[in-house]
Amino acid sequence: MANYRNVLVAVDFSEESNALVRKALEIAARNQASLSLLHVVEYTSSMYAGDIPLPEDLNLDRDLADQATLKLKALAEENGIPDAAQFVEIGIPKREIVRLAEERAADLIIVGSHGRHGLQLLLGSTANGVLHQAKCDVLAVRVGS
Amino acid sequence: MANYRNVLVAVDFSEESNALVRKALEIAARNQASLSLLHVVEYTSSMYAGDIPLPEDLNLDRDLADQATLKLKALAEENGIPDAAQFVEIGIPKREIVRLAEERAADLIIVGSHGRHGLQLLLGSTANGVLHQAKCDVLAVRVGS
Repeated sequence: MANYRNVLVAVDFSEESNALVRKALEIAARNQASLSLLHVVEYTSSMYAGDIPLPEDLNLDRDLADQATLKLKALAEENGIPDAAQFVEIGIPKREIVRLAEERAADLIIVGSHGRHGLQLLLGSTANGVLHQAKCDVLAVRVGS
Repeated sequence: MANYRNVLVAVDFSEESNALVRKALEIAARNQASLSLLHVVEYTSSMYAGDIPLPEDLNLDRDLADQATLKLKALAEENGIPDAAQFVEIGIPKREIVRLAEERAADLIIVGSHGRHGLQLLLGSTANGVLHQAKCDVLAVRVGS
């Protein structure tokens, strides 16, 4: 069975994101794999599901995405990850993670897990959703406590 | 951040278990880690939760555990895993996986995932439970379709 070749790591900009990226880089290096770095801006307009999104909601998503792009760029530069490997998407995190993983032909998705309490509160639906929907391996990395 | 040092792989004896063990061995080798191999016999007596377990239930668990020990031994020998690294436990799979991981100081738990449909049917509660409760990293390896 081959090593992993394309790794996708999804970060939520929690304080452990830098540690998660470093760990993902090590795993990618050990597998001689490429690494893609993703942040998903949760789709605020979806809060109005069923309604037609208001223009200001779409603008808010766009503003959030612009801010996220800058934050991701800083995180990526700190870790030597090139522009072409940085991705910001707007939507439902688990869906966007799985979608980008397929688009990038990722064979390993890495997500952070914040411990029992935190995982269930913060990442429960994302981590579970990725685990259920991904067509590739999923590594949940324990970060923080 | 260090490589993984102690890897625990849990198998359910589905037809993909051999592939899962091979992949776990490769990951352990790449990390120069030890590998422990676990099968959990689901605690049948728990079907009578609240009642006092009947002696025949306990005997059934014991019989199932004996059969599982033989199956695990065959799987282990096929893959060159020594006796001391083979574990059969009786109980609730997610709890026993997490418990043994702590006892063995595992820093990575590997479980199989059988695809969206299969994962939810067969492994949903186990994989989710491990993900939520483990104090270490968890890798869900996609096996089968």
